[in-house]
Amino acid sequence: MTLEQIFATRAARLKASEIRELLKLLDQPDILSFAGGIPDPSLFPAEAFAQAFSDALTPARQAQALQYSVSEGYLPLRRWLVNHMETIGVPCTVDNILITSGSQQALDYLGKLFLSPGDTALVGWPTYLGALAAFNAYEPVYDRLRIGTNRAPADYIAAAEAAGGRVKFAYLSADFSNPTGETVDRAGREHLLDQAEAMGCAVIEDAAYQALRYDGEAVPPILSLEIARKGTIEACRTIYCGSFSKTLSPGLRVGWVVAPQAVIRQLVLMKQAADLHSSSINQIAIHTVAERLFDSHVAELRAVYQRRRDAMLDALARHMPVGVTWTRPEGGMFVWLTLPEGQDGAALLARSLETVKVAFVPGRAFFADGSGANSLRLSFSCASEPMIEEGMKRLGVLLRANQSAD
Amino acid sequence: MTLEQIFATRAARLKASEIRELLKLLDQPDILSFAGGIPDPSLFPAEAFAQAFSDALTPARQAQALQYSVSEGYLPLRRWLVNHMETIGVPCTVDNILITSGSQQALDYLGKLFLSPGDTALVGWPTYLGALAAFNAYEPVYDRLRIGTNRAPADYIAAAEAAGGRVKFAYLSADFSNPTGETVDRAGREHLLDQAEAMGCAVIEDAAYQALRYDGEAVPPILSLEIARKGTIEACRTIYCGSFSKTLSPGLRVGWVVAPQAVIRQLVLMKQAADLHSSSINQIAIHTVAERLFDSHVAELRAVYQRRRDAMLDALARHMPVGVTWTRPEGGMFVWLTLPEGQDGAALLARSLETVKVAFVPGRAFFADGSGANSLRLSFSCASEPMIEEGMKRLGVLLRANQSAD
Repeated sequence: MTLEQIFATRAARLKASEIRELLKLLDQPDILSFAGGIPDPSLFPAEAFAQAFSDALTPARQAQALQYSVSEGYLPLRRWLVNHMETIGVPCTVDNILITSGSQQALDYLGKLFLSPGDTALVGWPTYLGALAAFNAYEPVYDRLRIGTNRAPADYIAAAEAAGGRVKFAYLSADFSNPTGETVDRAGREHLLDQAEAMGCAVIEDAAYQALRYDGEAVPPILSLEIARKGTIEACRTIYCGSFSKTLSPGLRVGWVVAPQAVIRQLVLMKQAADLHSSSINQIAIHTVAERLFDSHVAELRAVYQRRRDAMLDALARHMPVGVTWTRPEGGMFVWLTLPEGQDGAALLARSLETVKVAFVPGRAFFADGSGANSLRLSFSCASEPMIEEGMKRLGVLLRANQSAD
Repeated sequence: MTLEQIFATRAARLKASEIRELLKLLDQPDILSFAGGIPDPSLFPAEAFAQAFSDALTPARQAQALQYSVSEGYLPLRRWLVNHMETIGVPCTVDNILITSGSQQALDYLGKLFLSPGDTALVGWPTYLGALAAFNAYEPVYDRLRIGTNRAPADYIAAAEAAGGRVKFAYLSADFSNPTGETVDRAGREHLLDQAEAMGCAVIEDAAYQALRYDGEAVPPILSLEIARKGTIEACRTIYCGSFSKTLSPGLRVGWVVAPQAVIRQLVLMKQAADLHSSSINQIAIHTVAERLFDSHVAELRAVYQRRRDAMLDALARHMPVGVTWTRPEGGMFVWLTLPEGQDGAALLARSLETVKVAFVPGRAFFADGSGANSLRLSFSCASEPMIEEGMKRLGVLLRANQSAD
């Protein structure tokens, strides 16, 4: 038996992320890319990191920075996060916090903790495709999470049982989600909590973009609303996944989970078994930089990204043909375009790369059921305002030509 | 339903690593600890790392160091590893290499790739307990890997089938293993390859300590021997897991896997879904430091650790009572003690911490079947020679008292 035969069943569940494969092709200088959902590297607080790494490697501290450390995470960073969570309405202690290698790792661990094959995960149509990739390894069934509609919890439960499992969690990015840029309002969050309570399932709140609000009023985190209901985080069923990737640096791979201690204890054991701990020196450096400039740096990012979002919404309004609609995000990095029914985002991308040289991500990859062909994701995070204007103009030309051709 | 009830079945499979829990208790200044299997932090190439991080964060390079990067790993580091593997007899290309967050992560991914519940993993009695922890998440059955005995492959297969699965892999650390310090000789490795071939299973070669040989002749890696048989790595069933944790720094969490491309492709997808990639900046820093001083630094480590191993073997010979036996490792960090039958390493540790204040790891945790109570692991990596002499002397006193008391 060959190795491939041994892991054949497992391999069938893994498929390359279309986006990451796509991004490899888009590194060409003549392409105007709105594809990658990554922070603008020119905005990284690089000098602060240089100082932080240098500080971490002074003789007094180097042994700690370069040595093994505990699976729970660097205690001063967890303390900083306790304060940070308090400022966004989530009172907790260091025992409610685990440091992970980015929030992506939290999604993997939560899939591992909750999902047995055939269990149901509720996700948006569309949703973050990295979440689908993380959960897929544990062979769930997906059902469509609809917030604010009157689909009854009993219907979700019945569907899950018919699929041979149970509803284990609802996953969502409630603020400026990837890919749509949309935010779930307070009433929607309360409704979701009611539903989760009725279904007896967990809620996974992916807060990767939460700090990047440009206007409108902040909505409390779902976990904050649940703590307000129950009086203590220990009684909650919401698990909050945070990340420094969109605020300080993704390259250091530092994120965190906030949850009841019963959950954190399990995740700590899981992390101990899976990679021992996240990088010691990176946790120290993130702590140093966060302590020094988190708030001021995020304010700076918000100012820059807001201008880009404004430029994109403005350009879309001027250049898109009738029949194309899009979201108006109050934060984050993404605008979500819906093309007239019957058009195909993937085919459009192929034509776009050939003709107008504009890149974006076709929407279908974000749908657990393979629908959503007539949608696409645009990111404004790495584009200058003139580039956004030029890109949307070209895209408008292409879409008009496309519609005439149809 | 509470969250705990939701993940109850999963949680039962996770248990805290006795060693890591133990290490938390041993940070007391009056304890002479031979428990932790960690590198001596005073030997870290800290200045070289300070320079490397500083270089990585110069304006020309900082965007790359702080940004997302590819799941496969930093290409210059993979190129360096191609050369490194060549020097130890493993010809391969960058497409045979994945960078992981320590070799622990490789074990987790390999468990995920190969094991379905009920499948059999062959491991030593004893074996690295972190491997058991990583594999446990995937619910294998363990069978005892016996190298160089004439247990027939058909017997392993029959036992696996009786347990409801198949033999998926044999896992071992062939060089100066954790916990025994023992090395599998060339004939043993060839025998293992014969058996794996007959069983149609993979071989996971954990090479975490391989570079730390103090005397005796180097035995080629199992993967090297298999390539010699088959002509190309692509036809091999051995998967090599390397780590910089014991040579440069564990705190950066950088390890690697060398395997046929068919395996690497699967692991890349798995990593993409599980944590996107290992820290960009850490991979860059490890590459810089490895390129600059890997060989000379490892030579330095070998010289220091060799003296400590010699001191420990010498002290054991003088202080241990009759009836206690131990291994004579040619490298690594560990000596494995076997007490007379009926004695208990855990009970001995409790007495030791109370009376003579010497710490070590009781052996049972390293046995998948819970046997091995009359054994213990001593690490010499972090102890000075006088401390080793004093520690072994105290341990000898305790063991004599113990034997008189019995």
